[in-house]
Amino acid sequence: MKIAIIFGAKSFEHEISIVSAIALKKVLKSTLVYIFCDYNREFYLIPTDEITSKKFSSGEYKKYKKLEIKKGGFFVKSLIGVKKIEFDLCINLVHGADGEDGKLASLLEFFEIDFIGPRVEASVVSYNKLLTKLYAKEKGVSVLDYRVLAKNSVREIDFKFPVIIKPLRLGSSIGISVVKSKDELDYALDVAFEFDTQVLVEPFIDGIKEYNLAGCKVANGYKFSVTEEPQKEEFLDFDKKYLDFSRTKRVNRADISATLEESLKNSFKSLYEPLFLGSLIRCDFFVWDEKVYVNEINPIPGSMANYLFEDFEEVILSLSKALPSATKVPSEYRYINSIQSAKGK
Amino acid sequence: MKIAIIFGAKSFEHEISIVSAIALKKVLKSTLVYIFCDYNREFYLIPTDEITSKKFSSGEYKKYKKLEIKKGGFFVKSLIGVKKIEFDLCINLVHGADGEDGKLASLLEFFEIDFIGPRVEASVVSYNKLLTKLYAKEKGVSVLDYRVLAKNSVREIDFKFPVIIKPLRLGSSIGISVVKSKDELDYALDVAFEFDTQVLVEPFIDGIKEYNLAGCKVANGYKFSVTEEPQKEEFLDFDKKYLDFSRTKRVNRADISATLEESLKNSFKSLYEPLFLGSLIRCDFFVWDEKVYVNEINPIPGSMANYLFEDFEEVILSLSKALPSATKVPSEYRYINSIQSAKGK
Repeated sequence: MKIAIIFGAKSFEHEISIVSAIALKKVLKSTLVYIFCDYNREFYLIPTDEITSKKFSSGEYKKYKKLEIKKGGFFVKSLIGVKKIEFDLCINLVHGADGEDGKLASLLEFFEIDFIGPRVEASVVSYNKLLTKLYAKEKGVSVLDYRVLAKNSVREIDFKFPVIIKPLRLGSSIGISVVKSKDELDYALDVAFEFDTQVLVEPFIDGIKEYNLAGCKVANGYKFSVTEEPQKEEFLDFDKKYLDFSRTKRVNRADISATLEESLKNSFKSLYEPLFLGSLIRCDFFVWDEKVYVNEINPIPGSMANYLFEDFEEVILSLSKALPSATKVPSEYRYINSIQSAKGK
Repeated sequence: MKIAIIFGAKSFEHEISIVSAIALKKVLKSTLVYIFCDYNREFYLIPTDEITSKKFSSGEYKKYKKLEIKKGGFFVKSLIGVKKIEFDLCINLVHGADGEDGKLASLLEFFEIDFIGPRVEASVVSYNKLLTKLYAKEKGVSVLDYRVLAKNSVREIDFKFPVIIKPLRLGSSIGISVVKSKDELDYALDVAFEFDTQVLVEPFIDGIKEYNLAGCKVANGYKFSVTEEPQKEEFLDFDKKYLDFSRTKRVNRADISATLEESLKNSFKSLYEPLFLGSLIRCDFFVWDEKVYVNEINPIPGSMANYLFEDFEEVILSLSKALPSATKVPSEYRYINSIQSAKGK
């Protein structure tokens, strides 16, 4: 199996996508084809045995072959014409904007390139934290209470402090602050508004339990990871998360009851189907007072949450055989033809 | 002003997009550049003075120049290299799939081509009727009650008949049926499931009033169309809608009170901002028992709802100056550089 990894792109999470991509080299035995999208949205083919993070920060990647995305795949120009880069399918590993906001999914769907990753609708629903909440509630999965503030809104919140402030559309803890009192609110909002024109405000519940569960649906049912209780201080800041994206070491199963694990899996399934078909997602849940809440749906988790799976390669290969197919549209001119014939033309 | 009209694409509404595109020639004085996307998702440059619907149904369009979408625009290959097609901005006029589902918006955003039309997030929210309902409720705009059925769900509805059945993701009345009794349900569901794996069920309220209002936000506030009470029999079927997309004749203002008109405009504004910035949308409202409900948000209405505006060209030109800008992402390697320097590399 030849798998292309698409990473980078015009995103605040560009760098962690690079780290994520390099981590996959350690855990996948399949042949990997690295397709880098730079900050300028130009694609490059990076030889697998030469990939290092420095190649990107130094700009050295520009010496490699430039690619163009077109119908059916990625192409490189050569003296004798245009050559298609061969692979069986690709993994969208662009975190944040471009990758998780629906743009790359759209490109891959439009150009009919098989991929593992959220489709455009799933991307938009999980990227925008307000839409995630509305969607989860509709699916019967609880969410924490929230308010949405726009850049030009009055900066008042009818919540008790502490609260947590998040840009509405970013991942990876960027721009997130815990605000303990009213005095700290302005600064936290200024920070969050650097990244988005809207921010989400939620109560910050000290001592709330957090559990991460990854998985996907394949031909014969769901493949679930172990449930992890992520290590956190107050909450993971970006520097720590950054390191987190390079994880390849298997983690220990969280010490939770079979009942709770079952309940997390049921919430996962309610959220997954049919929206996230074709993607390996990680759901981050809260548990408070024996009730399960979904915090976030990561449709392209850091290094694909490989460290949560017993046999990550097998999961990817099974998923590659269970990609959703697009609705068939017949290429017909029924109406124009009938009008033409009515006109006698 | 040189405006490119992108139309066609791999959509059940491909044909009405052609009709819509041709209609704009009659109402816009700006120079138009016609970019056709065929069922195979190949782009062609159609000379404005040669455009007729038959050119497409006959396949004759293939004799025109083929275009490629790339960073910055659409390009044509010539003997001396690659030439960019010149225009100031484009209008996404692809109705239904590809155009309204977020794919084309993503392509235009990714390749940094200025356009009038919904951005990827707005596309997804308005294309999926369930998401539209969740979004509208969140924005304080009422919607009719509903159920969502999946292809493999039990075919039972806890609603009184008559009900209306709609594919969850199509526009233009395709696959829609009014179901008067339980006997008719199966057939209507079969029809709707031809077009989507999920369908929406709503009560069908005889005598409900329907009003359409189009508009957009420009530099100095909102530009609203007149409010139209669409002519309908039981409801517009596709054949009638098809003709509807070629409308260019100004319509009469609906005979409603100033209070109701104000209330429709307020609902419109609640739905529009900030999600739909950059697009000219048509909101289709219901009024029942003096209450306003939103039925649908059309982010790319047929022939851009030109017939609803006093001065359509002026609206388009004002909107072209009020397109939203993308969030700026600095091209930096902060984390990789700091790790490299910590390693002494």
